[in-house]
Amino acid sequence: MIPTDPITNLATLIRCPSVTPAEGGALNALDAMLTPLGFKVDRVVAKEAGTPDIENLYARIGTEGPHLMFAGHTDVVPVGDEGAWTHGPFSAEIADGEMYGRGAVDMKGGIACFVAAVARHVEKHGPPKGSISFLITGDEEGPAINGTVKLLEWAAAKGERWDACLVGEPTNPDRLGDMIKIGRRGSLSGRITVRGVQGHAAYPHLADNPVRGILQLTGALMDPPFDNGTENFQPSNLEITTIDVGNAAVNVIPAKASAAFNIRFNDSWTAESLMAEITARLDRAAVKGALRPGREPVEYEIVWNERPSHVFLTRNNALIDSLSGAIEAVTGRQPKLSTTGGTSDARFIKDYCPVVEFGLVGQTMHMVDERVAIADLEILTGIYETFIAHWFGHAAA
Amino acid sequence: MIPTDPITNLATLIRCPSVTPAEGGALNALDAMLTPLGFKVDRVVAKEAGTPDIENLYARIGTEGPHLMFAGHTDVVPVGDEGAWTHGPFSAEIADGEMYGRGAVDMKGGIACFVAAVARHVEKHGPPKGSISFLITGDEEGPAINGTVKLLEWAAAKGERWDACLVGEPTNPDRLGDMIKIGRRGSLSGRITVRGVQGHAAYPHLADNPVRGILQLTGALMDPPFDNGTENFQPSNLEITTIDVGNAAVNVIPAKASAAFNIRFNDSWTAESLMAEITARLDRAAVKGALRPGREPVEYEIVWNERPSHVFLTRNNALIDSLSGAIEAVTGRQPKLSTTGGTSDARFIKDYCPVVEFGLVGQTMHMVDERVAIADLEILTGIYETFIAHWFGHAAA
Repeated sequence: MIPTDPITNLATLIRCPSVTPAEGGALNALDAMLTPLGFKVDRVVAKEAGTPDIENLYARIGTEGPHLMFAGHTDVVPVGDEGAWTHGPFSAEIADGEMYGRGAVDMKGGIACFVAAVARHVEKHGPPKGSISFLITGDEEGPAINGTVKLLEWAAAKGERWDACLVGEPTNPDRLGDMIKIGRRGSLSGRITVRGVQGHAAYPHLADNPVRGILQLTGALMDPPFDNGTENFQPSNLEITTIDVGNAAVNVIPAKASAAFNIRFNDSWTAESLMAEITARLDRAAVKGALRPGREPVEYEIVWNERPSHVFLTRNNALIDSLSGAIEAVTGRQPKLSTTGGTSDARFIKDYCPVVEFGLVGQTMHMVDERVAIADLEILTGIYETFIAHWFGHAAA
Repeated sequence: MIPTDPITNLATLIRCPSVTPAEGGALNALDAMLTPLGFKVDRVVAKEAGTPDIENLYARIGTEGPHLMFAGHTDVVPVGDEGAWTHGPFSAEIADGEMYGRGAVDMKGGIACFVAAVARHVEKHGPPKGSISFLITGDEEGPAINGTVKLLEWAAAKGERWDACLVGEPTNPDRLGDMIKIGRRGSLSGRITVRGVQGHAAYPHLADNPVRGILQLTGALMDPPFDNGTENFQPSNLEITTIDVGNAAVNVIPAKASAAFNIRFNDSWTAESLMAEITARLDRAAVKGALRPGREPVEYEIVWNERPSHVFLTRNNALIDSLSGAIEAVTGRQPKLSTTGGTSDARFIKDYCPVVEFGLVGQTMHMVDERVAIADLEILTGIYETFIAHWFGHAAA
């Protein structure tokens, strides 16, 4: 059966209980939709010590360029309190014009619609004038170690090259057509530790209170702002996510204090330039010393505690105009080109080709009673189908 | 035997292992020294649910005024690493002119010398022209619930009234005669809790980071200084003793942050006026909001977490001049009249009569190898004996 109906496609996918790291039958179901369309489907199992093995899927129709990639994930977050769901989280029941189920919008719905869009395109026009591929991971909601990164490496190693990518994550805050994501802020985290000298609270001159230093250093991180935003990005924002001393004795000056921070940064910065700025601020604040004159510089160390997520901005007109135009043609609405929100797997794909994100309305994602309007599935399929036509038109021009 | 030798007295006391809350034979030994001198000795056991029973001692010679009290404690802190001691902590061994033992300076030594001083006075002049009493607790180094406070209440309830008190705690930083304590700073502690709204670090506008608020509030407590000191006191000093958030997730803005502080305050303040000042500072800082404009006032609560220690300053010339004069007569040194350091039991006694503190050199107190120079025991006995003569002379004048 040719999978031209997004509702049927989504019901099939929702009924697969693919909570990370379980495949749950979701990739088998996708395989069964794509193979009849003429896709060559590869199933790639990624492994890494200390993490569960993860099944991923890569499928391509066509052998020539231009080459359009659709990227996403079939894994879903846990259902939470199953008893609180109005309809079973893996039942795909429809009520009042909405289909219920975990993954309905994040993002089995996006996959169901893109499959339907490709099926309709092939049904009407035959195989695409170039290639379309699906890069689908089962590890987006989990540790994300055996997912998109490894699947991209695997595909690139066997010679795959792409001209553009659309990620089908839910990007619309309120209504379908609100927002395309054309970039993402970077994310950088670290932990600062200040060492002082323990002592009695009545003899502060014999001690050195590290709380004074940690306040000085965190203050320097929070003020002044790192920037005022750029053309396409919000101002960079730093949050002190924790401060920990753990001293239960009210008469004792503690020996050590630490604080962690996370900064979401825009394209004024690279992760490297931001690390340099943060270090410079800390060094200045440390030399400035604690609030009292005559004190030694604050002794501190910083540990950058994860690989940073790099900021990116996609400036590819063919891709952005094809998608914006398709959205406007179908919904009459001009989407906002946004770079807000958290990180996404698009940050890995941007190293291979221009990438944008557009999918369903995200309001119920990760919540009990995650659900999608049936009407939206039809509209999104229309947008995706129009986008495919536009993009291959652009690319051929 | 009349206990005129402070070295013998101290050896006897050190050999009693009176680590709080154990009496360890120390009060029995003191009883055996005082009774032959003509003291009427009372042993007072204080009890309170949830704390160990504590033995205390009150002894008086004479029935008339003027009435001089000597106050102190026979309990000692634990020995720590016993193997690290050069000589056994309860052996009272003498080596190179020093006697070793837990309590040598804090403060069995002070008691040993005052007993010897009284014994010499009685031997030379007969009973004092008035009364002398010993108010000795076994609960100064512990919870201090069943000690000085209850013993004072017990004695006052049976009609005891005093004209002056000398506490025999070690008060000299370097050399005997350096320093008399004529008052103590107060101590006040509290814990501030700021409640925010938990959220994702990428969406700070949907959250409210309580770390921002706790930094704002603690900053207001630390700056500006509360005062610049007074004639007799150092500047009041506040230490933030802990900040605790306990958020392990670097992508999450936490829901709650708390900080504790301790302030040692001088006679510019009462505990009550200081609480009012701190609350006013916090309220202003809360309204000023966190570092970003447009934010709500910081929501916080404060819990004052112990009964404050009140500041006091003794201005009694008969007492201070008698003691200073005795120190100068014996050592040739003019002692500094100080109010530095932590709190002491003198803060309870000041509600009954003027009180000052003078004892041995405190350098080894609470340490492994606590010890006292034999020469200092003889000198301190001389000072105490001269003080007794001066004070009764003053009081009679």
